[in-house]
Amino acid sequence: MTGKVLVVMGSDSDWKIMESAVTTLRSFAVETDLQVASAHRAPEKVLALSSGARENGYAVIIAGAGAAAHLAGVLASKTTLPVIGVPLSGTALQGLDALYATVQMPSGVPVATVAIDGAKNAALLAIQILAVHDAPLAARLEQEKAAMLEQVEEKNQKIRNLADL
Amino acid sequence: MTGKVLVVMGSDSDWKIMESAVTTLRSFAVETDLQVASAHRAPEKVLALSSGARENGYAVIIAGAGAAAHLAGVLASKTTLPVIGVPLSGTALQGLDALYATVQMPSGVPVATVAIDGAKNAALLAIQILAVHDAPLAARLEQEKAAMLEQVEEKNQKIRNLADL
Amino acid sequence: MTGKVLVVMGSDSDWKIMESAVTTLRSFAVETDLQVASAHRAPEKVLALSSGARENGYAVIIAGAGAAAHLAGVLASKTTLPVIGVPLSGTALQGLDALYATVQMPSGVPVATVAIDGAKNAALLAIQILAVHDAPLAARLEQEKAAMLEQVEEKNQKIRNLADL
Amino acid sequence: MTGKVLVVMGSDSDWKIMESAVTTLRSFAVETDLQVASAHRAPEKVLALSSGARENGYAVIIAGAGAAAHLAGVLASKTTLPVIGVPLSGTALQGLDALYATVQMPSGVPVATVAIDGAKNAALLAIQILAVHDAPLAARLEQEKAAMLEQVEEKNQKIRNLADL
Amino acid sequence: MTGKVLVVMGSDSDWKIMESAVTTLRSFAVETDLQVASAHRAPEKVLALSSGARENGYAVIIAGAGAAAHLAGVLASKTTLPVIGVPLSGTALQGLDALYATVQMPSGVPVATVAIDGAKNAALLAIQILAVHDAPLAARLEQEKAAMLEQVEEKNQKIRNLADL
Amino acid sequence: MTGKVLVVMGSDSDWKIMESAVTTLRSFAVETDLQVASAHRAPEKVLALSSGARENGYAVIIAGAGAAAHLAGVLASKTTLPVIGVPLSGTALQGLDALYATVQMPSGVPVATVAIDGAKNAALLAIQILAVHDAPLAARLEQEKAAMLEQVEEKNQKIRNLADL
Amino acid sequence: MTGKVLVVMGSDSDWKIMESAVTTLRSFAVETDLQVASAHRAPEKVLALSSGARENGYAVIIAGAGAAAHLAGVLASKTTLPVIGVPLSGTALQGLDALYATVQMPSGVPVATVAIDGAKNAALLAIQILAVHDAPLAARLEQEKAAMLEQVEEKNQKIRNLADL
Amino acid sequence: MTGKVLVVMGSDSDWKIMESAVTTLRSFAVETDLQVASAHRAPEKVLALSSGARENGYAVIIAGAGAAAHLAGVLASKTTLPVIGVPLSGTALQGLDALYATVQMPSGVPVATVAIDGAKNAALLAIQILAVHDAPLAARLEQEKAAMLEQVEEKNQKIRNLADL
Repeated sequence: MTGKVLVVMGSDSDWKIMESAVTTLRSFAVETDLQVASAHRAPEKVLALSSGARENGYAVIIAGAGAAAHLAGVLASKTTLPVIGVPLSGTALQGLDALYATVQMPSGVPVATVAIDGAKNAALLAIQILAVHDAPLAARLEQEKAAMLEQVEEKNQKIRNLADL
Repeated sequence: MTGKVLVVMGSDSDWKIMESAVTTLRSFAVETDLQVASAHRAPEKVLALSSGARENGYAVIIAGAGAAAHLAGVLASKTTLPVIGVPLSGTALQGLDALYATVQMPSGVPVATVAIDGAKNAALLAIQILAVHDAPLAARLEQEKAAMLEQVEEKNQKIRNLADL
Repeated sequence: MTGKVLVVMGSDSDWKIMESAVTTLRSFAVETDLQVASAHRAPEKVLALSSGARENGYAVIIAGAGAAAHLAGVLASKTTLPVIGVPLSGTALQGLDALYATVQMPSGVPVATVAIDGAKNAALLAIQILAVHDAPLAARLEQEKAAMLEQVEEKNQKIRNLADL
Repeated sequence: MTGKVLVVMGSDSDWKIMESAVTTLRSFAVETDLQVASAHRAPEKVLALSSGARENGYAVIIAGAGAAAHLAGVLASKTTLPVIGVPLSGTALQGLDALYATVQMPSGVPVATVAIDGAKNAALLAIQILAVHDAPLAARLEQEKAAMLEQVEEKNQKIRNLADL
Repeated sequence: MTGKVLVVMGSDSDWKIMESAVTTLRSFAVETDLQVASAHRAPEKVLALSSGARENGYAVIIAGAGAAAHLAGVLASKTTLPVIGVPLSGTALQGLDALYATVQMPSGVPVATVAIDGAKNAALLAIQILAVHDAPLAARLEQEKAAMLEQVEEKNQKIRNLADL
Repeated sequence: MTGKVLVVMGSDSDWKIMESAVTTLRSFAVETDLQVASAHRAPEKVLALSSGARENGYAVIIAGAGAAAHLAGVLASKTTLPVIGVPLSGTALQGLDALYATVQMPSGVPVATVAIDGAKNAALLAIQILAVHDAPLAARLEQEKAAMLEQVEEKNQKIRNLADL
Repeated sequence: MTGKVLVVMGSDSDWKIMESAVTTLRSFAVETDLQVASAHRAPEKVLALSSGARENGYAVIIAGAGAAAHLAGVLASKTTLPVIGVPLSGTALQGLDALYATVQMPSGVPVATVAIDGAKNAALLAIQILAVHDAPLAARLEQEKAAMLEQVEEKNQKIRNLADL
Repeated sequence: MTGKVLVVMGSDSDWKIMESAVTTLRSFAVETDLQVASAHRAPEKVLALSSGARENGYAVIIAGAGAAAHLAGVLASKTTLPVIGVPLSGTALQGLDALYATVQMPSGVPVATVAIDGAKNAALLAIQILAVHDAPLAARLEQEKAAMLEQVEEKNQKIRNLADL
């Protein structure tokens, strides 16, 4: 019942951040595809990717882009699938330009924006969306949540030891 | 196969913005519930809402909050359902505080953030999530997209007339 | 030898700012066309407008848009004509979102950005571009510059009178 | 008559900044406890820590967190003890996100916010609070103030020497 | 065992915001004094107020100031009592100048900063400080917290009624 | 021994703010001249004003400008007299553009910048400069400082009365 | 029919960014001249460069400057040729000062602003302006656009290989 | 007829920036004194320095401070001499906190603010103030201006050579 996730990024230099999205999706056994496709250098490819996404079996699109980050917004223009935007830092404005250009979408065309350079959270959000009607995937997410909670206690013990408590 | 959407807002004064989320959800015949629940004034209610959300039949949570907007993040801490955050303006910082407090979530706990005061887009994003595996709802969204396209042409004609073109 | 100028705006509500671009262009007798065309609601129209612009006799494109202002960038993706972007205020971020989304274009696809709400200057810049090889139009611009200089002296006199000097 | 201070931090990576809070508290012989407890990964632990803080003998809580820093606010939701927030830098927004998310608390639930990465000042503020009704501790703070004044003169002499004065 | 609270503000025009601090303190029956004293126009008065504060029976100082808001910092320089700073909006920078000038204190001299225009929260923070060793006052704060929780439910009901739920 | 002050402003619309500079200078009996002269519309006038300022008997220049406020910097380029810049609000960026464009001068060409819309302070700074070697003028400034101190006490009394103290 | 491009920069230290403008212009066989000329250190040279630019055969001026970047604006004051501004980073404000000082020009005197440190795009914009009436140059730009599109596919393949797709 | 310049800095760590102020003043043979004196750690010393400055033969005060930079403002509170403020970077906010805290002074107490880390320009501004009525010093400044102009041409030649022009 689940679908595939399409990860799109504006440039190959974005891979160093966006790789963690792919890694996270795969660690949940979610089928993942990946495309480099710039809204400014290859706009028709971008529109084709999103307008055909649903019939190609994708359920969610993740878009990572920096600077005047238009990628997520342009993808969102041609699909009714949820589009998740990852604003990337790397310019002099340190990602604030990408954040504003990704999140401040006009009425009618939402982009689900995560933190600057938040590629892993984009993947988790995509998995949450897939898991709305996928009980086993939801269970996997609950396990991850439980694991995070355990890690908090491990970190707690580690720091308390460092502090001689 | 779809689920209900839970709209939570931090204060009754947020209703003037968040009402459009409810209106939009209902216009798509999506079952909608609504709660006022502040992360700072009623944290246990907030945790209870989100930890019980999945079993109570909710598929998506929308949270609208301003200032140091912790509502979406705290909701997200106790559920694996997608949580959509609407940063609200209204303070001296005009929503920039709420945007940062909503979108900059740490790794592991995403919040799908929309534009400042973007309540309608939050609803549309929730519907997109529901429509991933709901073909009729997806069709409704496509109709809406087509209607927006038509409106662009109507506005185009209106403005061209104003400009004597 | 000159060409026409195409003014595009994302929404009919942008007309209150963008009208001055049209007025200015016409005051220089520059042939002007006007389209409402959102990068998010009508992306194919936007691409069609710019990919066909040169053969349709346009020499310069002016794009006015607010919020996550992708219009100028998407227009620029499909033409080698100069594209002038006017970031529009009107959101909670008062045009800073539109400024970043318009000016911070990636390498390879420039947008000539003017001030927030600077529609008149966009028109003047378009006329300057047309006037590069159009001596009479350049002469008209020089007249305008001379007129501005005179106005400075008129304003100077007015204020000195107010100040009893 | 004094009480203990509870230092909470969102992640073990915050220790490099927050350690100076512990060191400062101990240098004043203030009994200090330390917990790693994320508002997003372990919200119930956070609520438990603060709702039980007063009866467990704590007088002040210090919370250090970065990004969408909700830790101090969530702690403050369940206690009437003073909560001191330390916004931590470390994201692309360099602590501005944490500052806004910590200081802009809604009416009714204050967080006493210190400078970005200001862990030492958080400790001093906690000690000042303890010293309101603890004369010996107040005396120790006065000594510290006097020592700072002396250091100013030492630094003054050092720099005047460097400048040949 | 409690002490008095001294509220200082930089100008009489700050009264419209700072009045709620006084009102809140009095609603908790906390003895409150009030002074207008600018760090830039009356620095010696400011230093005298804070250097004499402890022996004059004050336990906490609240300072409200706008623009290059130095008042809280200068008060803090001469006392070991906790100083709470309220950054006030009102300039072209809408309180961001006052926030930075209040919260970014150097190591050794903390100011407990609350939200821009957060005068009521400053008072509540002062009361929390007084209540550290004052059980009846702590009980009053707990009542207030409980009242806030009830108000959330009242607001909840009101909004649910508005939304026909 | 004193000199005259030249007040320059970029546009007649700046008069509503800059008038207070002229009023303040005259209240100290400082001879004041006033010119409207835009760095962008009348650059040669600007250069002529500053390059001739010293020999024309001016001692200080005050420049008020908004937006990309180049006026003070261009005046400073052609004189070794102190140039005081007043960044004016009025654009969508509310004076932050003018502040940066005025204060961030490169090494070698300082502009003495005052607060956004701080025309009165610009005048006082000019008078302070004139008063360096003008004892009667310095005495007048001391009287003003004393008057401000008295006003603080009057305001203090007024507010204490309002607060029933 | 084309003209020359004049590249002006405020300081020799700007060469490390601005060199790519010259390289790009030359790669298109556009005749390029280069001048170091500060608006604050050599204002008359700046005015002379721009007031004589048209008769000296220049068609476009590119200006790169940082901090309170007045260079583009002052050049624009004395010419009706299009002036392209490149805001340079390098100060503590990381180019935001230069961006505001370049783009926020007053009505009547536009500067075509590109991204912070966007020297290559400034060159491309200049070439686009020259190509408005120069078919072979326009063809060269179209080739470049096609090459960018191919590079997207090469990068796509590279990243897909890295991701084992 | 000239006077001495007093350079004050908040901490010995500010010397690495402020040294250039001293070097510049001495290169113009201006008698210079130097004090480390924090507004927060040694407020009485700060007030004493400025209240006695005029009778001690100082004509101008330069103050360098970072973070919540109150030093210049507090110095200005007790003197009618011109006070020049140098906002220093070094915090997470990169000097923006110091800029706002220095320049946004309230009406009645100006601080002549220069660029972030602009210690050399502070010295030049002080010399300009001294040179208002000191013809030889003014002549020295004119020489410096001429030297800067020559350096522009040297840099021009250097860069043109690098660019093979």
